[in-house]
Amino acid sequence: MQPEPETVFATERDWLESTLRDRIALAGFMDLRVNRLDETGIRLDFPLPPSINDKGTGFGGALASAMILAGWSLPRLALRRHGLAAELVIGRCQLRFTAPVRSAYSACCDWPADEALESFLTATRGEGKGRLDLAVRIETEGGVAATLEARYAALTPNQEGS
Amino acid sequence: MQPEPETVFATERDWLESTLRDRIALAGFMDLRVNRLDETGIRLDFPLPPSINDKGTGFGGALASAMILAGWSLPRLALRRHGLAAELVIGRCQLRFTAPVRSAYSACCDWPADEALESFLTATRGEGKGRLDLAVRIETEGGVAATLEARYAALTPNQEGS
Repeated sequence: MQPEPETVFATERDWLESTLRDRIALAGFMDLRVNRLDETGIRLDFPLPPSINDKGTGFGGALASAMILAGWSLPRLALRRHGLAAELVIGRCQLRFTAPVRSAYSACCDWPADEALESFLTATRGEGKGRLDLAVRIETEGGVAATLEARYAALTPNQEGS
Repeated sequence: MQPEPETVFATERDWLESTLRDRIALAGFMDLRVNRLDETGIRLDFPLPPSINDKGTGFGGALASAMILAGWSLPRLALRRHGLAAELVIGRCQLRFTAPVRSAYSACCDWPADEALESFLTATRGEGKGRLDLAVRIETEGGVAATLEARYAALTPNQEGS
């Protein structure tokens, strides 16, 4: 019997939150929490104080980090679901900062289209390297404050995994 | 009598290091140090541990933060030298991550051409808003590991400053 999707997401959320907080030093310092992980996507929550800058608003580098982590999470979970032992890295990205962040904020990323995810997994499995483009946004009480368009790459040392 | 350039740079370096470390929480956590500030540009040093990721290398968000801070520092100092009370923010940027960072690293930025800096200061003073494009790089023992091309904006609430 297959587990219910809600159970799968809850298990994945716990695994992801501890992976991010415990293994990526900046994510722990920023007090990252996985607020939501479901069939639509992911939402990571951050309090303002660890991200604060000289103007009392969210530092651009902290917002960049939050978005890079939200984008990384979805292909990381997809690789885990399919038992693919690949390293997942960010290759290049574009950032836009459109409004100051004056309170707690969230980094949100939607799952990509099924075809894009399938082709990412197929290339990772077959060629040892898959690429996935994702769009991420910072949401605050006042709306979207920053966006990220990023290309992530999964790299498998050999096709049997490592 | 004008102070010697070396003395000016030493004073600015102390002011900048404490501004970055004490007023930008992430910079303090990342243990930022101003290694060099001179007529060629700036070099910020970072140890690896606070920037580490799940692969034991430098997290992309930490490298992004380091580069955003190095780029921010030069126009910030230029505004200070000219007594311009403006907020300095990053508007948009492009990042490329080209090699893993396996040890302590530096974020380096060269002063822009005189004409670009002059036009940034003139627009900030005259129109209350100036823009400056800067290129920043992450240097490690193995060479350049990441690059940033960013547009910074100085915003003056009114032409008398605030």
